Amino acid sequence: MKKTTLFGSNLRRGMLGATLVSLATWLNPVMAESPFSNAVSMGDNREAILPHPAQTKAAAEQLEAMYKKTGKRPNIVWIVADDMGYGDPGAFGGGEIVGSATPNIDQLAAEGLKLTSTYSQPTCTPTRSAMMTGRLPARTGLVRPILAGDVITANPWADEFSIGAALSEAGYYTVLTGKWHVGEVEGMRPFDVGFDEFLGYYTSQKEVTQGFDERRFPSLVLNPERLAALQNAGGKVDMYHGRKGEGETIAEKTTSLEQFAEADHTLAAFSIERIKTLSEGDKPFFILHNFMRVHADNFASKAFKGKSKAKYQYRDNVVEVDAHVGQIIEALKEAGVADNTFVFFTSDNGPQNDTWPDAGYTPFRGAKNTTWEGGVRVPGIAWWPGVVDAGRQSDGLFDLMDLYNTSLALAGASDSIPTDRYIDGIDQTGFLFADDGESYREKVYMWSAYTPMAIRMYEYKMHVRVLRPQAQWLDIDMATNSQVGLSPWLFNLYIDPKEQYPVGHRMSAWLASIGQELKAHEATFKRYPPKKVGLQQ
Amino acid sequence: MKKTTLFGSNLRRGMLGATLVSLATWLNPVMAESPFSNAVSMGDNREAILPHPAQTKAAAEQLEAMYKKTGKRPNIVWIVADDMGYGDPGAFGGGEIVGSATPNIDQLAAEGLKLTSTYSQPTCTPTRSAMMTGRLPARTGLVRPILAGDVITANPWADEFSIGAALSEAGYYTVLTGKWHVGEVEGMRPFDVGFDEFLGYYTSQKEVTQGFDERRFPSLVLNPERLAALQNAGGKVDMYHGRKGEGETIAEKTTSLEQFAEADHTLAAFSIERIKTLSEGDKPFFILHNFMRVHADNFASKAFKGKSKAKYQYRDNVVEVDAHVGQIIEALKEAGVADNTFVFFTSDNGPQNDTWPDAGYTPFRGAKNTTWEGGVRVPGIAWWPGVVDAGRQSDGLFDLMDLYNTSLALAGASDSIPTDRYIDGIDQTGFLFADDGESYREKVYMWSAYTPMAIRMYEYKMHVRVLRPQAQWLDIDMATNSQVGLSPWLFNLYIDPKEQYPVGHRMSAWLASIGQELKAHEATFKRYPPKKVGLQQ
Repeated sequence: MKKTTLFGSNLRRGMLGATLVSLATWLNPVMAESPFSNAVSMGDNREAILPHPAQTKAAAEQLEAMYKKTGKRPNIVWIVADDMGYGDPGAFGGGEIVGSATPNIDQLAAEGLKLTSTYSQPTCTPTRSAMMTGRLPARTGLVRPILAGDVITANPWADEFSIGAALSEAGYYTVLTGKWHVGEVEGMRPFDVGFDEFLGYYTSQKEVTQGFDERRFPSLVLNPERLAALQNAGGKVDMYHGRKGEGETIAEKTTSLEQFAEADHTLAAFSIERIKTLSEGDKPFFILHNFMRVHADNFASKAFKGKSKAKYQYRDNVVEVDAHVGQIIEALKEAGVADNTFVFFTSDNGPQNDTWPDAGYTPFRGAKNTTWEGGVRVPGIAWWPGVVDAGRQSDGLFDLMDLYNTSLALAGASDSIPTDRYIDGIDQTGFLFADDGESYREKVYMWSAYTPMAIRMYEYKMHVRVLRPQAQWLDIDMATNSQVGLSPWLFNLYIDPKEQYPVGHRMSAWLASIGQELKAHEATFKRYPPKKVGLQQ
Repeated sequence: MKKTTLFGSNLRRGMLGATLVSLATWLNPVMAESPFSNAVSMGDNREAILPHPAQTKAAAEQLEAMYKKTGKRPNIVWIVADDMGYGDPGAFGGGEIVGSATPNIDQLAAEGLKLTSTYSQPTCTPTRSAMMTGRLPARTGLVRPILAGDVITANPWADEFSIGAALSEAGYYTVLTGKWHVGEVEGMRPFDVGFDEFLGYYTSQKEVTQGFDERRFPSLVLNPERLAALQNAGGKVDMYHGRKGEGETIAEKTTSLEQFAEADHTLAAFSIERIKTLSEGDKPFFILHNFMRVHADNFASKAFKGKSKAKYQYRDNVVEVDAHVGQIIEALKEAGVADNTFVFFTSDNGPQNDTWPDAGYTPFRGAKNTTWEGGVRVPGIAWWPGVVDAGRQSDGLFDLMDLYNTSLALAGASDSIPTDRYIDGIDQTGFLFADDGESYREKVYMWSAYTPMAIRMYEYKMHVRVLRPQAQWLDIDMATNSQVGLSPWLFNLYIDPKEQYPVGHRMSAWLASIGQELKAHEATFKRYPPKKVGLQQ
């Protein structure tokens, strides 16, 4: 009879002897292949994948059949909320219980595939640049939010191939609506980096509102010299429109908090109008709809003021985002293209605790700016009626960078992915579209700018450095970045989703093996050095 | 133009002057009615309710029509998991992401009403006694788990009217399957307090297993004198069967960990068999199915060992509980009584952190034994095909004590509820069964034995005392019960579900008003003094 052990199956799988040897390996690393890995190499500039040949074939055949039937590659719509917490949508454990029901997002999840292990970067610019290039921020140089007063020494976009450019070249009309925040100087704007059209803002909500908000920023608003200095430092606060090759025009001047609070209405109306018009054309379309909401500072629009049960502006704005998501989906249905459109809904990072109570909810530890789950685990929903089976759920790993490769596969343009650089994204078409598809991703890597912080591999999360708040709920404005002690901090997210109780090598045989995986990942930066131009670090 | 305020609508609703006056009232309480309350009195021995006359009438008419159609009062099945965390079932944010999918519980939630603000007592015996009497533990004397070696000085059950007795008198055949843990001496057993039949264990899993488990309890198991002392101290570890008026027999001797790990199979089979047989009879039935699982210490049964993705015994056992829930529901369908059976699924308290990794998951602060949300907020699902609309969700307050009044209302036996004592439960039939019904409960009170700790009123939670762990994850074995400082700790659970950021009187006008509600509640113990017999305190 097999003996039952105190700490379960993981202890049984390993041998203490092997653990100690591997621990020595961790302290004195060699590039040996980890015995814990099941991934296969895709070349020295590609992330290794878990092979699922049958589902890969099934998904490819299904997509090819769709293409033959419709004669058109599928439309692609990414919908990205700003700073929305994992726990904000009802489908992810929030909704009603946090005083802001999200029936439209919940329905999207119920009709599609709910991904409970979707990962972003810890902050805005890094996530957006990574999604749009399939590359980690340290590879593109777009490693942190661009702020007023930032001096741009070189254009990090110059040699990047954005999803807007790639899909445009593949025959799509590519639109970016809403928040950009990946550079506002010439050469760095959406229509400079390949998008056919842009309507939106270059910065986040707070950057727009702070010059108008004397309640929160009296020392700025009531001080004409500082206000002028802010305006001189850049800080384009108006809504801009631009087209490839044509440059920008101001679409709407920002004149007050009340006027700006209507921005997401205008932006949703724009995406909806483009859906209508483009659905009638010959080209497939790609729309990246980036909400301004629910990044601090939140002001409720007229139609949504007090519409959440909680009444707080943040929660009213969650309700507004949810309503617009519903309208965008409705527009796809009305235009008759829902069955040939892939929609992905997500957030760009965890909730921003620093601005609480103007902040979202995550059940996890940490918040925006940290590499704890609270900072990087975001809602993820893949929706495509008739292709993605309704009611699916998966905890398979999905990195938002995977949207790059996946979308180019949908466009039949996987071959356009550059081969002269490292691509961190993985084509997940088989995971998302095959019946009961499984993730191709074995590992997610977490960085803070140029510093490797943590790795998730299966249900394990290993930290080599941690961001720690030094004052209550200040994860950005007063946090330290510390190295861990003797050995990495290892958590088993199945039995400890809140990362409270390290299992170390005492309860997992795989500490050293996972450490080797992170080392091997770091080695990709030796073969393909990080880009350190553009932003002052 | 209305100015937007920094802290949202709640500040706008109040006046600072009023707050300061009320704060004085808090410090020097009078029994003034709180201006924040919308509840109406139901008499001096009943909890005040939020009146919803239209839905009350609609639900009553629907139930009466059912009764006329079937000629039988509805069957009632309460299913109670032990120590399962709020976050364990997929429908409440867990499932896949914690490595133990719960498709059957999720389906129950999808087909019924998911209650996201269901409250238990902080520990086992208190919750079970409260559910079965509609009365707070301090009123019945059953204020804490009964442990080996406990001297029972008087029988707290002697003058209580259990749901088993009440429904039996109302014409039901009443069965308690599984865990009892509300007294094992004569006079305190299920069939002594009114249940027609019992099959199960008097104690929790750990009490059963510890005498057999030399891995965890070597100092007990390998020490014959201590083991004998434990057995002499009580500690009935076998499975018992009993009937009203007939006393008990041993149904199955406990002989080993492996044998006991099959207990929930046997118990589920018993409930399923009773469902089959009783469905053919003339009487309606009431089955209170109390799982032994997932209280520590968990051992996986043969059929479920390694069946969870996480592989840990706790998670395997969640999968087993889920499977049995599915089987019980299936049995109701097969017996043709699903459309005349009210099912309620819940857990008896938050997860027990002390035994981690043999522990559940809650996204909230605290754990079993505390009056933080993590200790007392539990999954709640009301299911009754054709009566409870599928897909409903509500954050309306529901106290597990409400099952007492609600179930007696279903039995047409509301009049049997004693009038000579204080009843804390509320009849929630209109909430559960009317279309879009709303909760009748305005407040939930949280106690630790005879000490009032906290109150939830709408989205506010006010603590006057707090349980604080003094060592990592030890919420039971090393925690202190501390009084708060100058003023109560107040949290807004909509914007702070994890109870991290007190809003005090700075951000809520209602601190003092909510304090008055707690004082008024405490005053019910002056009119109806607490019962302090039975257990040594």
